[in-house]
Amino acid sequence: MADILDAKSMIETAHALADAAREVILPYFRSPGLSADNKHAAGFDPVTEADRAAEQAMRAILAERRPNDTIVGEEFGTTQGSSGLSWVIDPIDGTRGFMSGTPTWGVLIAVSDDSGPIYGLIDQPYTGERFEGGFGLSRMTGPHGPVDLVARPDRPLSESILFTTFPEVGTPAEMKGFQQVASQARLTRYGMDCYAYALVAAGQVDLVIEAGLSNYDIQAPIAVIEAAGGIVTDWQGGPAHQGGRVLAAASKQQHEEALEILSRVPLD
Amino acid sequence: MADILDAKSMIETAHALADAAREVILPYFRSPGLSADNKHAAGFDPVTEADRAAEQAMRAILAERRPNDTIVGEEFGTTQGSSGLSWVIDPIDGTRGFMSGTPTWGVLIAVSDDSGPIYGLIDQPYTGERFEGGFGLSRMTGPHGPVDLVARPDRPLSESILFTTFPEVGTPAEMKGFQQVASQARLTRYGMDCYAYALVAAGQVDLVIEAGLSNYDIQAPIAVIEAAGGIVTDWQGGPAHQGGRVLAAASKQQHEEALEILSRVPLD
Repeated sequence: MADILDAKSMIETAHALADAAREVILPYFRSPGLSADNKHAAGFDPVTEADRAAEQAMRAILAERRPNDTIVGEEFGTTQGSSGLSWVIDPIDGTRGFMSGTPTWGVLIAVSDDSGPIYGLIDQPYTGERFEGGFGLSRMTGPHGPVDLVARPDRPLSESILFTTFPEVGTPAEMKGFQQVASQARLTRYGMDCYAYALVAAGQVDLVIEAGLSNYDIQAPIAVIEAAGGIVTDWQGGPAHQGGRVLAAASKQQHEEALEILSRVPLD
Repeated sequence: MADILDAKSMIETAHALADAAREVILPYFRSPGLSADNKHAAGFDPVTEADRAAEQAMRAILAERRPNDTIVGEEFGTTQGSSGLSWVIDPIDGTRGFMSGTPTWGVLIAVSDDSGPIYGLIDQPYTGERFEGGFGLSRMTGPHGPVDLVARPDRPLSESILFTTFPEVGTPAEMKGFQQVASQARLTRYGMDCYAYALVAAGQVDLVIEAGLSNYDIQAPIAVIEAAGGIVTDWQGGPAHQGGRVLAAASKQQHEEALEILSRVPLD
C-alpha cells in the first residue's frame, strides 16, 4: 500500500513539474527577442533563459516534495539524495527545434532507480500533449482528449518508419550504420527531437535511432516507450539509460532487424 | 466596395474549406487502421482516404459558393471556371509526415489570379493552428490565441535558420546547391513539410529551400509569406507559383545570399 501511495505521489509530482515547466517555458517560445547562449563554442547548442528557468522551477518543487531524492538535470547537474530514487530532467530537450519555432522539443521527466527509469513523462507545452508511462500507466493527453499509448506490433524493417533528428546522427561510423538501416526502411524522417520517441509509444513510428545522447535525453523516453510495449536498448542490445547510442523500437521484429545492422558499427 | 465584399467572401470561403477539411481529416490522423495507397509505384507517396475525402468536401463547398472559379486540386486535378480566379488546394500537404503521426502536414488553400496567389491559408488541424495572408491580412490563430505574422528582418546567411523537408532535396545537383547554402547557414533542420513555410511567416525561420514542388504545394505558402513581409521565388529569382525549385526567405538579405548560391545550380 505504501508503494502504491508513493507511485501516486510520484506521478502527481511529475505532473506538477511538467505544469511548472510549461508555465515558465511557453512565454519564451516563438518570442521575437529570444536570447541564446552558445554552450559549446565549437558547436551549436543554444541554452535559453527558458531552459534554465524551467529547471530551477522544477528543482524548487522537488526540494519541497521529494527532498531525499537525487536530481539529475541537464542545466544544473546532479544534486545527490539518499532515497535511491533519482529525478532525471531535461527542461527543453531539442533546443534547436525550440529556437526554430517547431513544436518538436519537449520537457523530459524521469524517475529512476538503480536499474534505470521506472516512470517517464514527455511534455510538449505548445501543442498541449503529455505522454507518460510507468507505474502501470501508458497514456497521453492532448488537444483531442486522452489516448492510451500502444506501440506498433511486429513488422519487417522494410515496412517500418524510421526517425532520427539530424542526418549526421553522430560520428561518421554511426551515420553509416544509421544509413544502412535507413536504406532498408520504408520511410526515413528527420527533425522531430524527443517527439519522435513519443510517436513510437503512440503507435505511429517503428524506430528511432540516435547517438551521442545524455542520460537526461533518453530516460523519460525509455519509460514511456517500454510502458507502451516498445523496446529501447543501445546498439549492442544492452541498457540505454546512460545515453550514448540508442535504438528505440516499437516491437521485437523491428528491434532485431535494426540491431542486426547497428551492432556491427565499431565502438569508438 | 464590391472588391472588398468579394475579399470578405473569399476569406470566409477559405475558412469554410479549412474547417471542412479539418473535420474530415482529423479522425484519420494517428488512427491505427490508416490505409495508404501507393500513388507512384516507383516511390513512396501515400494518399490516404483522408486526402481524397477532404478534397471532395472542399470541392463541394466551392461548387456551392464559388461556382465560377477554377479549382486546382492535388487529388482530383483541374475543374475549369470562368471568373479568372482559381482555388488551388492541397488537402494534405506532407502525406509522409501525416503517415508518421507528426503534426507538420497541412491543408493548403490559395486564391490565385493570372499573376499568382493573392491569398493563402495554411491549416494544421491537429495543433489547431491556422496561418493566413492576403487581402490585407497576415495573422495566425492557434492554441495560444491570435498572433500577427511578421517575417524576420534582414540578417546574414551565417546567422540564418534554414529548413527543407528531405536531405536529398531533389536531383543530385539540387541537393548540392542546397548543401552549399546549408554549409553557410547557422542551423539547418529537416522534416517540417509545409509547416516550415508557416514558420517563415511567423518570424521563426529565415529560409526554406525545396525542389520538385507542384503549384498546389507552394501557392498558399507564397501568399502567407509575402503578406508577412517575406520573399518567395524560384532559384533564378523569378516567380515560384508554378512550383519546381523554391526559395522562401524572411527578408531581402537572406534571399539574396541564398539566391547567389542557388542561381548557379544548372537547370535540368
